[in-house]
Amino acid sequence: MKLPGQEEFEHSSAHENVLAEELDSGLGPGPSLGGPSDTDNGESGVSKDPLLFIQLNELLGWPQALEWRETGRWMLFEEKLEVDAGRWSAPHVPTLALPSLQNLRSLLAEGIVLLDCQAQSLLELVEQVISGESLSPELRGQLQALLLQRPQHHIQTAGFRPCRGPKAFRNASFDEDTPVKHQNPLKQKLPPGAEAAAVLAGELGFLAQPLGAFVRLRNPVVLEPLTEVILPSRFFCLLLGPPTLGRSYHEMGRAAAVLLSDPQFQWSVRRANNLHDLLAALDAFLQEVTTLPPGRWDRTARIPPPKCLPSQRKRLCSELQEVTGLSRGSAAQAGDRHHHGQHAPSPELQRTGRLFGGLVQDVRRKACWYPSDFLDALHPQCFSAVLYIYLATVTNAITFGGLLGDATEGAQGVLESFLGTAVAGAAFCLMAGQPLTILSSTGPVLVFERLLFSFSRDHSLDYLPFRLWVGIWVATFCLVLVATEASLLVRYFTRFTEEGFCALISLIFIYDAVGKMLNLIRAYPIQRPGSPAQGCFCQFSGPGGNVSEWTSTKHKDTDVLSVHLGLVNASLLSPPECIRQGGYPRGPSCHTVPDIAFFSLLLFFTSFLCAMAFKHVKNSRLLPSVVRKAFSDFSSVLAILLGCGLDAFLGLATPKLLVPTEFKPTLPGRGWLVSPFGANPWWLSVAAALPALLLSILIFMDQQITAVILNRAEYRLQKGAGFHLDLFCVAVLMLLTSALGLPWYVSATVISLAHMDSLRREGRACVPGEAPHFLGIREQRLTGLVVFILTGVSIFLAPVLKFIPMPVLYGIFLYMGVAALSSIQFMKRMQLLLMPTKHQPDMLLLRHVPLSRVHLFTAIQLACLGLLWIIKSTPAAIIFPLMLLGLVGVRKALEWVFSPLELLWLDELMPEEEKNIPESGLEPEHLFSRDGNEDSELMYQPKTPEINISVN
Amino acid sequence: MKLPGQEEFEHSSAHENVLAEELDSGLGPGPSLGGPSDTDNGESGVSKDPLLFIQLNELLGWPQALEWRETGRWMLFEEKLEVDAGRWSAPHVPTLALPSLQNLRSLLAEGIVLLDCQAQSLLELVEQVISGESLSPELRGQLQALLLQRPQHHIQTAGFRPCRGPKAFRNASFDEDTPVKHQNPLKQKLPPGAEAAAVLAGELGFLAQPLGAFVRLRNPVVLEPLTEVILPSRFFCLLLGPPTLGRSYHEMGRAAAVLLSDPQFQWSVRRANNLHDLLAALDAFLQEVTTLPPGRWDRTARIPPPKCLPSQRKRLCSELQEVTGLSRGSAAQAGDRHHHGQHAPSPELQRTGRLFGGLVQDVRRKACWYPSDFLDALHPQCFSAVLYIYLATVTNAITFGGLLGDATEGAQGVLESFLGTAVAGAAFCLMAGQPLTILSSTGPVLVFERLLFSFSRDHSLDYLPFRLWVGIWVATFCLVLVATEASLLVRYFTRFTEEGFCALISLIFIYDAVGKMLNLIRAYPIQRPGSPAQGCFCQFSGPGGNVSEWTSTKHKDTDVLSVHLGLVNASLLSPPECIRQGGYPRGPSCHTVPDIAFFSLLLFFTSFLCAMAFKHVKNSRLLPSVVRKAFSDFSSVLAILLGCGLDAFLGLATPKLLVPTEFKPTLPGRGWLVSPFGANPWWLSVAAALPALLLSILIFMDQQITAVILNRAEYRLQKGAGFHLDLFCVAVLMLLTSALGLPWYVSATVISLAHMDSLRREGRACVPGEAPHFLGIREQRLTGLVVFILTGVSIFLAPVLKFIPMPVLYGIFLYMGVAALSSIQFMKRMQLLLMPTKHQPDMLLLRHVPLSRVHLFTAIQLACLGLLWIIKSTPAAIIFPLMLLGLVGVRKALEWVFSPLELLWLDELMPEEEKNIPESGLEPEHLFSRDGNEDSELMYQPKTPEINISVN
Repeated sequence: MKLPGQEEFEHSSAHENVLAEELDSGLGPGPSLGGPSDTDNGESGVSKDPLLFIQLNELLGWPQALEWRETGRWMLFEEKLEVDAGRWSAPHVPTLALPSLQNLRSLLAEGIVLLDCQAQSLLELVEQVISGESLSPELRGQLQALLLQRPQHHIQTAGFRPCRGPKAFRNASFDEDTPVKHQNPLKQKLPPGAEAAAVLAGELGFLAQPLGAFVRLRNPVVLEPLTEVILPSRFFCLLLGPPTLGRSYHEMGRAAAVLLSDPQFQWSVRRANNLHDLLAALDAFLQEVTTLPPGRWDRTARIPPPKCLPSQRKRLCSELQEVTGLSRGSAAQAGDRHHHGQHAPSPELQRTGRLFGGLVQDVRRKACWYPSDFLDALHPQCFSAVLYIYLATVTNAITFGGLLGDATEGAQGVLESFLGTAVAGAAFCLMAGQPLTILSSTGPVLVFERLLFSFSRDHSLDYLPFRLWVGIWVATFCLVLVATEASLLVRYFTRFTEEGFCALISLIFIYDAVGKMLNLIRAYPIQRPGSPAQGCFCQFSGPGGNVSEWTSTKHKDTDVLSVHLGLVNASLLSPPECIRQGGYPRGPSCHTVPDIAFFSLLLFFTSFLCAMAFKHVKNSRLLPSVVRKAFSDFSSVLAILLGCGLDAFLGLATPKLLVPTEFKPTLPGRGWLVSPFGANPWWLSVAAALPALLLSILIFMDQQITAVILNRAEYRLQKGAGFHLDLFCVAVLMLLTSALGLPWYVSATVISLAHMDSLRREGRACVPGEAPHFLGIREQRLTGLVVFILTGVSIFLAPVLKFIPMPVLYGIFLYMGVAALSSIQFMKRMQLLLMPTKHQPDMLLLRHVPLSRVHLFTAIQLACLGLLWIIKSTPAAIIFPLMLLGLVGVRKALEWVFSPLELLWLDELMPEEEKNIPESGLEPEHLFSRDGNEDSELMYQPKTPEINISVN
Repeated sequence: MKLPGQEEFEHSSAHENVLAEELDSGLGPGPSLGGPSDTDNGESGVSKDPLLFIQLNELLGWPQALEWRETGRWMLFEEKLEVDAGRWSAPHVPTLALPSLQNLRSLLAEGIVLLDCQAQSLLELVEQVISGESLSPELRGQLQALLLQRPQHHIQTAGFRPCRGPKAFRNASFDEDTPVKHQNPLKQKLPPGAEAAAVLAGELGFLAQPLGAFVRLRNPVVLEPLTEVILPSRFFCLLLGPPTLGRSYHEMGRAAAVLLSDPQFQWSVRRANNLHDLLAALDAFLQEVTTLPPGRWDRTARIPPPKCLPSQRKRLCSELQEVTGLSRGSAAQAGDRHHHGQHAPSPELQRTGRLFGGLVQDVRRKACWYPSDFLDALHPQCFSAVLYIYLATVTNAITFGGLLGDATEGAQGVLESFLGTAVAGAAFCLMAGQPLTILSSTGPVLVFERLLFSFSRDHSLDYLPFRLWVGIWVATFCLVLVATEASLLVRYFTRFTEEGFCALISLIFIYDAVGKMLNLIRAYPIQRPGSPAQGCFCQFSGPGGNVSEWTSTKHKDTDVLSVHLGLVNASLLSPPECIRQGGYPRGPSCHTVPDIAFFSLLLFFTSFLCAMAFKHVKNSRLLPSVVRKAFSDFSSVLAILLGCGLDAFLGLATPKLLVPTEFKPTLPGRGWLVSPFGANPWWLSVAAALPALLLSILIFMDQQITAVILNRAEYRLQKGAGFHLDLFCVAVLMLLTSALGLPWYVSATVISLAHMDSLRREGRACVPGEAPHFLGIREQRLTGLVVFILTGVSIFLAPVLKFIPMPVLYGIFLYMGVAALSSIQFMKRMQLLLMPTKHQPDMLLLRHVPLSRVHLFTAIQLACLGLLWIIKSTPAAIIFPLMLLGLVGVRKALEWVFSPLELLWLDELMPEEEKNIPESGLEPEHLFSRDGNEDSELMYQPKTPEINISVN
């Protein structure tokens, strides 16, 4: 079961944290509302209040052995000390009983409130607090001694295994002068400038009446023994009293700590001038608490931290609104606008109206960043990013090289894949508008290449020269698209189009992987018991041997193949050995290799299932997160290695990846440069424009959809995008790779996102229960460049690659197809068709669109996909890019079937459609701020890069 | 992420619901506290308050088009109408803002409160309510017309696909006289006697001041158009007022509805005498609410219903306590005792002190129920139970028969398994103390039989006669155990022993399954490319043929097997065909069958993975629950069928299950009765007492642990248990099966639990978000009897069984071992060793025992298991039952290492240990009620039948 805010959709971890940061982690909702400070981040957040570490010390053991013991702590969430187990509980959302808050209020109202206290030490503080009390001198002394008594802290040692043995409690000793020895690892997790607050609570029998005190220190002072982490304390809260029925000082202490941990209350109390302000802040807190009915929720149940904290902006808005009389809608709009800002087109997508105007602007924009693109890479993080992306790139090069070799029957192969990846990738990194992009062979282009090859083979064309002309034309068309700023059309590619695109390519992958596997099984037939004859022996033509007798006897004619062997030398050598020794293998089963078919099938399933399993290790609870992440990130590599190991262990003659033994093109007899005509007629160079047009559509869609995803606002890129420049680079590289007979390349979504993810800059501090702060991406050109140089060097590793069995690669292809297919929302809606209503997840679109309409939309998408599949299966398969573009038209036509609001929830809006929606309903945040709508804002998360559009 | 109360442990569904019912589902906490009414159930709950269906109708459309619309409903949880989507939200825990409760309170305090109103219709009711208001006659008329206006209800049609098309809203028409046509399917889910409450809320501009009214009708009346379900209404709440800033009548309406849905408030308000009582109930509610701080929890997030509702007893206790001055501990104890009552020994386990005293008591107890044991079976539910258990039993018979045939090399087999299951099972059902038990071959006994067979083979003994004497001795020993009431010792078998028992057997299963698979692969060797020679041909000894030449040539001596064939007739027939035609197959590969090894491996993994996957279909969201349950229940059957289908499709000569072609024992040449001596010396009949002693220990442990699990208190069995009688029956059947050479049988945990689960009696009504009410088990003897008669009839299906490939059965064995192993807590603690502290689940034992102590306990268990495994691997393997018993001693010795409280959390207590714990700490509920302990009582769930002790 999932809580809201922990939605069904998979997010990249990058994204989640972006959001968590956007919602400002409750670290101070204060005065940052005014300006649209989209780019403020944790580092430059000057005016934010510091984080508060709150510790509850309880007085236990009355009346015999009084001692203070730490029993709880709060940073963002509550951690309770499990006394018996000697460990901190997992962080959880604190729950309070209402009476404890009310009791706290009345105690504070009657108690001592010192705001801007000048005390310099705990002693001074305690003296000031007690002086306000009417106590006998003796009691006063007793109380003072008690308050100065050092509390027992529970300090959890860092590392894998906490607290060995029963010595879980350690006294933070006064006498010891080496506090460094036992330094609390928690301190390293707290952001710089963090302050402490101590809440002391308990029952004290000798007091006649309750003693409540709330102190705010003007200058925070380290009150040494009070808190487990040595931090300057800002707040001090004392709640003592005689044991009274129905008044739990423990609960009141918790209430005080929870109050202090609330960002809004903290903000107010830091600025409070008197008791009245303090109580007003408490009352404001009470007005905002969420209450759960006692009969339906057990207060002792621990609620795990939500993935995103609620925005404090809204609370501030409502406060502002009361003051200024702003309407709620516009206040919320002002506050929330930048959450969902990605709906507005980015500045890079504004039309200039001049020929090549976009390209010129892109070049101008990127040029000034060029030196910093290399200087910014000087950070150790970049090394690990290089290693990670290098492995991913090489795996990709092997996989797609193998696929391409299969599809083009050896016209290209793994060696071309390595060389092309290295050359194209490095060149792109040096020139591109978005240098974080990793260029790669992608699914759609591969599918097209396969079709192009089939076409040229069916018409007996010389493939590579034909392909060269296609490449030349594609480059030309792409240049036209750059000149006319066609990249701006990218806004017409809504999710409907993207999902159709992705689903078709994924299905082709799955179909091909299974098909190739079946072909392989057909090539190594299984011997059934009923098969007419088996056996094979090796014949050496002896002096009286009569070889012709064999050839004349076909076992088709008779069930019993009975021949007079005469006087011949025969042996039971295996066929290769037989040939080596100069004999002839004879018999029907000489050319069948047993066991290969099933072993290949085993390898296929093993690599597929292992890749899937390794990918999901990330969600396991076992193992440290570093190990899990490694498993998940390198799932394909590991699955390939496992398959190779299994194959090598058994040593069977499974079909292997074909790799040239030396550094030369896979196709025998060609040089590195493709001749422009070969055996083709001259007019073919003109006719190639037709397939080139189709390929251009495909490349444009593939490249631009990826580019939009990579340049999304939530990544906070500082150096801007370069849509036109990127397409220009792709066009130039198209020309180069066609001329050299290398694979074609465009930007690859998933691997580029992984690249960005490995270059995230994050805040150091990470308080228990909190997600790390996202500060931005190390935007530079060097990591990509090094990755591709390494890939180039790896060409000399090619001889090792011939140990990779093809079934393992097919298994990885299947995995890619399945993973890409299952990542799209379309599949989630397909599942809804099979899901009983009461089990359906709490998706936003189900809250807003009737189920029948959702099903209708899914059915239309399914029909489109079926149509595309049918076209793909006819001889006209090669026109499928045109059909993909046709999805845009279908999506346009959907406007007649669905209302704009429905389309907003099911898909997203095309540029013109935004006009058709009443102004206040245009964007989700408006819908949200609509009166009476109780959708959680946490559900309005910006679109995630959920589409593995490139199947890589 | 899981919420507490949705713990990591897997519960049988039977158990969950038992618990849900125990916590009394909040259906009325009322006066049932007094007596220890453990056995009260929903049907006989006379004094309970009826369930309340609460509907919120909101006034929308002011000022243009006023209309009432249903926007929410409450039974146990809140369901909100998703207006746009036209569907009800999933049921969720309602959350309120505190001000809405406070506003409601002040509105009610100033408003009209009519308790025991006598109105007979909506018109009368409205007139009475309005008459109290000071309004102008014109406004009064307007208001009355408005209140009588029929509201728009959202009636969700039942079935798979709700509300087609946009006509989601239907008016409950006045004029139509056929309300049956559109009868609300929800009504069928409400328990009989349910009452309705209507809350009407909204903003009404023409009112000068707010109008609040709360009406309790003396006799509930159907206020026809008010609620979507036609039910007599008990409460009516009206909250109208002019639009005011900061006063949301919608939220106040929700608050009123949530209040009414709270069992404690409802109990009070049903008994309230005046406004003061009403407000006091509201204040009591406020004292009990759980509050979540606004900065850490978003109020709009929807919390799914917890698996168990909090017990209302505690709240009542605290109320009683205030009245009577009872100490909290003892009040809670009185209320909670029966939750955890299974710690006390059941009455069947009291010592009588007489020889056979327990047996006599058992027979006496069961005799009076005997007629009803057949009459109670007359219910359609028993038919489906028979079908389900029959399939499970037959699968078991096949699987264990196959295992046994393998282990005893054909001394027994599938036919014996079928016959024995039928005879022993039916006899047990007729005689036993607990007739719901399903007798079956179980893992431990099978392991012992395998060892016994190895022993007798190694010493060249005649197995079956030897086995007969073992059986005779076992029966004797068991009778002694019955006579001495040894079953009472079962309390010394704590979880430590049970888990050691289960883990060892599971590991043996896993080891055997993998070992058998490897043997199979060795029997069908894989041909590697490097293998020296292959080929096979068929030689017909012609006139000049010299057969001896072949035999003299061994391919070990030379790599090249080269022979002069001379003038012989040879052909390439397959070996069987060759033999059929009178030839001799010649050559090294004649006796190898290719492809079998890998295909067997594929079948093995397929059946294992499919059984696992089918088992987990239950947790999927797809498909209706009936289908998912079927997949899960029949996972083994389906996996076997799938494997057989795959095998039949390819038609390869995989090794199959050996089944005699006619109805005779599997061992050739023996009759059905085993001769008492055979070829064995006479003294062996005495020596058999030694292995018999070991087997007796094993059977006693296996039988009694299962019996204790089956007779647990949470199943609410009415007819009592019969531990001694059960053991007596097992002993008698031991004698019978040994004499006939049939497998040995004891009670099987899992299949018996499945039997009980299929005979659950449940309350019909099941309100959204609520688990079904558990009423008990249909205790009878007929279903078991019919199942075993059907199994007996199925012997004639035996010829079909020879199509089952052995690798499929091995896969199922592996699945059994893995499933049993993963079900024990020991494995969860093993995982903790690998789990970083912060990812560890919120287990109770981790809250109370230091992690290092948990790890120590796990390590000791692991060491014991290692020792057992080593013993099992030596020639002394047969003494392993003694070693299992030794676990009890190890557990006893653990008292010196761990404190009793630690053992309470990590294991459970032995009889004497209970004295060593301070009285208040003896049982979890005491720990729970201890001051300051904040563990959720929801975590103290009674022990579930988590141990698949019998590996079946």
